[in-house]
Amino acid sequence: MYKAPVEEIAFTLKHVAGMAEALDAGTFGELGEDLVDAILGEAGRFASEEVAPLGDEGDRQGSRLVDGAVKTPEGWRELYRNWIAGGWNGLTAPEAFGGQNLPHMLHVAAMEMWNSGSMAFALAPTLTMGAIEALEKHGTDALKATFLPKMVSGEWMGTMNLTEPHAGSDLGVLKTRAERRDDGTYRIRGQKIFITWGEHDFTDNIVHLVLARLPDAPAGTKGISLFLVPKFLVNEDGSLGERNDVFCHSLEHKLGIHGSPTCTMIYGDGKFGREKGAIGYLVGEENRGLACMFTMMNNARLAVGMQGVAIAEAATQKAIAYAKERTQGRAPGWSGDGMSPIIEHPDIARTLLTMKALTQGSRAIAYACAHAVDMAHAAQGEDARQWQERSSLLTPIAKAFATDAGVDVASMGIQVHGGMGFIEETGAARYLRDARIAPIYEGTNGIQAIDLVTRKLPLSDGAQVRGFIAELREVAAAVAASNREGFGETAARLDAAVADLEGATDWLLSRLRDGKLAEALSGATAYQRLFGLVLTGVYLAKGGLAEAGDGGQDRRVALCRFAAENLLSETSALKDRVVNGAESLAAARSILD
Amino acid sequence: MYKAPVEEIAFTLKHVAGMAEALDAGTFGELGEDLVDAILGEAGRFASEEVAPLGDEGDRQGSRLVDGAVKTPEGWRELYRNWIAGGWNGLTAPEAFGGQNLPHMLHVAAMEMWNSGSMAFALAPTLTMGAIEALEKHGTDALKATFLPKMVSGEWMGTMNLTEPHAGSDLGVLKTRAERRDDGTYRIRGQKIFITWGEHDFTDNIVHLVLARLPDAPAGTKGISLFLVPKFLVNEDGSLGERNDVFCHSLEHKLGIHGSPTCTMIYGDGKFGREKGAIGYLVGEENRGLACMFTMMNNARLAVGMQGVAIAEAATQKAIAYAKERTQGRAPGWSGDGMSPIIEHPDIARTLLTMKALTQGSRAIAYACAHAVDMAHAAQGEDARQWQERSSLLTPIAKAFATDAGVDVASMGIQVHGGMGFIEETGAARYLRDARIAPIYEGTNGIQAIDLVTRKLPLSDGAQVRGFIAELREVAAAVAASNREGFGETAARLDAAVADLEGATDWLLSRLRDGKLAEALSGATAYQRLFGLVLTGVYLAKGGLAEAGDGGQDRRVALCRFAAENLLSETSALKDRVVNGAESLAAARSILD
Repeated sequence: MYKAPVEEIAFTLKHVAGMAEALDAGTFGELGEDLVDAILGEAGRFASEEVAPLGDEGDRQGSRLVDGAVKTPEGWRELYRNWIAGGWNGLTAPEAFGGQNLPHMLHVAAMEMWNSGSMAFALAPTLTMGAIEALEKHGTDALKATFLPKMVSGEWMGTMNLTEPHAGSDLGVLKTRAERRDDGTYRIRGQKIFITWGEHDFTDNIVHLVLARLPDAPAGTKGISLFLVPKFLVNEDGSLGERNDVFCHSLEHKLGIHGSPTCTMIYGDGKFGREKGAIGYLVGEENRGLACMFTMMNNARLAVGMQGVAIAEAATQKAIAYAKERTQGRAPGWSGDGMSPIIEHPDIARTLLTMKALTQGSRAIAYACAHAVDMAHAAQGEDARQWQERSSLLTPIAKAFATDAGVDVASMGIQVHGGMGFIEETGAARYLRDARIAPIYEGTNGIQAIDLVTRKLPLSDGAQVRGFIAELREVAAAVAASNREGFGETAARLDAAVADLEGATDWLLSRLRDGKLAEALSGATAYQRLFGLVLTGVYLAKGGLAEAGDGGQDRRVALCRFAAENLLSETSALKDRVVNGAESLAAARSILD
Repeated sequence: MYKAPVEEIAFTLKHVAGMAEALDAGTFGELGEDLVDAILGEAGRFASEEVAPLGDEGDRQGSRLVDGAVKTPEGWRELYRNWIAGGWNGLTAPEAFGGQNLPHMLHVAAMEMWNSGSMAFALAPTLTMGAIEALEKHGTDALKATFLPKMVSGEWMGTMNLTEPHAGSDLGVLKTRAERRDDGTYRIRGQKIFITWGEHDFTDNIVHLVLARLPDAPAGTKGISLFLVPKFLVNEDGSLGERNDVFCHSLEHKLGIHGSPTCTMIYGDGKFGREKGAIGYLVGEENRGLACMFTMMNNARLAVGMQGVAIAEAATQKAIAYAKERTQGRAPGWSGDGMSPIIEHPDIARTLLTMKALTQGSRAIAYACAHAVDMAHAAQGEDARQWQERSSLLTPIAKAFATDAGVDVASMGIQVHGGMGFIEETGAARYLRDARIAPIYEGTNGIQAIDLVTRKLPLSDGAQVRGFIAELREVAAAVAASNREGFGETAARLDAAVADLEGATDWLLSRLRDGKLAEALSGATAYQRLFGLVLTGVYLAKGGLAEAGDGGQDRRVALCRFAAENLLSETSALKDRVVNGAESLAAARSILD
């Protein structure tokens, strides 16, 4: 059973991702290490003791649509009640609406643990938090006053309604209609698909944020507006009024996250409400809906990246535990009686260490991204701009690298279990089924790569990424300067990997300058992975450098060295694919016809 | 819907894997290209028109245990009847027992297509064929006369009973007991798990081959005997007699291959039969059961490799079809109205080409292995020994590389489908669920790597592998000599890749010579993948070289070049992992405790 790795998480937050310096500098006011540790400890306890025990059974039961209502798995409603009673829903929300206004780093760390317990469950509040963010930034005071306190407390949950059958990655073509009414409200009509937690029995009301198009809106993405559409209208005294004209038409039958209801939502077909059309309230300006969505897109993407980290952590824990217990064959050098635990076989040990390195690398990347988000909020002027750019740069990498790692590590976890891994009761297969959605939603990893190459590399005319690479090189230099034998060839390996990243970056920037977009995009995914691998090596090294000089000192150093000498050699192949792969790709394209 | 790629398969068999030369030389007697094409065409028709349409529904329904009997999915029993009516079950079986004694190559090619249609269905006869092989080689004449004709016709099916809860990869510790009876039969008692198609409604009788231990047997693998245990005893006139004391206790709830019943079988607990103990007949000699099993192990492993190829092919077809139809965004250079088909986006095209290259590379490796099996049977003396060694060398690579490719390609296929890939009705997710077992059963891919490094590399004191590598180098030279512009950098890339393979091979052989087993095994899995990647590049090049000089000439050349310039750069990283990875792995091992 999953046990939240609170210590590892705290160490990574503080000593790898930058929280310790920020706390020392008083960046987050009165917040100190003690409170950080207490929050992480309690979040971890909740994840290990309350969420994780309901994860497998929630997967088996799934959420079901019964007579138009979604029935969630046994015990989940109470779990949610306990979770909001702990105040977790408002961790980063503004104090004015009942939140605790704590750093985003703490939020993503806690989210990691809940997602490890059950990704399907933890998805529910994730969507609410995105809705809170959008509403807080763009909603009118009246809307905020009515909805935010109850969304921050968790009494009501929120959803995000973007996708339609023909509008997934490309929202510009969405068809849901909004019509202005004389009273300042709008009437919404249309169908939305893949709506996560679009309907459920956790809360009495559900606050949908819906993208739709006004009749006179310009075509494409500049004609999309954002609306708040509550399941139940709210009376002036805050009590629930009549049912709005929106309902869940069906649930998807999915590969994983069975506990999470993925809904097709129908707006305004007259099933509820006195007149046809769901009543909606404009959020932000007309035709500026996509901009409103984008303000929270980065955090949503980071949140999905955390799911990758979370699954990787849980899958690794399970595989290590099994490999220690299961005996089979005799490993070379095994001197015990009878069969050795399979963890003694070099191939199994290699697999487990790879899982561990990818998990910790992904975690560090995601936390570093969250740190940049926090610093961008806390800093001023040029500093703030720099941190904003840093978080923008890191977001697609955190999303894509961590979610790919989630899938890969979950798959390795099955393999370590042998035949038992294929049996659902073992629980290893669930991790792969759940993990498989994360590289897809909130922008496929291919979309992330396009974003990374075409929007993030050009930030400050390439100065942001170049500055970042210079920082990475400093870590390699610090490893060399440390003279710690345990690092082995780490310094040289890091140097070479950073050089690969730099070479690929230069090449991509030059293609962008020359307007060779197709060439640049041909290697975008390889570049994204290259970046993530280099960061994995560098952040593991930072951890090794920060490790205290006591008897246990070599654990982080040893993992870093393993990653440097066993995983980082892939960077030269990835750079080669970026720099030399486009021509043969273009030449072969026609064989697909 | 899957359409059997009969032409591609025929081309690969003949011009890449070696069948054309063998046919020209009369190796298979009267067998000529016409008959080969006719058999492939009909096997493909059956796969596309009969098997594939029942694949998805078979997955949804699964096989179920109802009152002790296994109910297979709707239509599957009739499908099996049609399949054996086509004579497919006896394709390679000896003519003396009603088989057609055709080359193994044809069998694996046909199996690929049926597995693409439904891996869960095609598994059923796969097990029968293994049982036929074991029985034919090691059974008494009486046993053969009673059982083989009906197993070859498919009237009865066979199973293989190896695994027990504590004996998976390591069969030496199995506990099922066999006791001698005065009448020359044996009584079998014990429990076997993970028995594929152990019970079903396809046939009236089921012939179990069961590994068990005699009371006075030596410990370990040298004390295991093989028994034939029919579900129903057979009367002297060939009619079915009384029920034997064996039954299916339960079915596993698995990640995939839901249509295939995975049974826990109980032998001899007295539920059936007049006295406790299932009646069994010895196959081969007492305590030599594992040797009997090994005679068919190679073919079983190759058969599982074919499942990897099969899933990769089916997943690739589905993804290409979707990518052509689904429109989203505007790819660079897209000049059409509105959104472009997603296949126009470079990242999607790269993914699809990678899927295609891995599929065709895996297919060629598996067919080349089957060719070596055929040649070992057809040749004499030293030639036969050489081909035997070649098939032994290729088997673990065919099994592991192709099954890893099956998982990877199926996962890429989901990704290409975006959100739809996660929805079960789409069918892309089934491929991943089904594919995930193949790297595990018939010896995990880690076991294959151990076999490759410790048993196959040392064949003829390393001369077998070195001779093979020399042949690979010749292909690279032929590409260089061809002067065909479309090959781009292929020749140089192949040269470098083969050099990586040679360097890693030399290093491993030197470690084995020095008795450094743990070091050699640390990189065994990386080496296995390295070997498979190099073979992928080489066999795609062979295809390119063999391509006719007409207008369509560049399709294979283009795919080969894509693989050479985009996938083969990984070989240097893999070689590095083999040669330089062991020390840091050993140093990090303790952090898993």
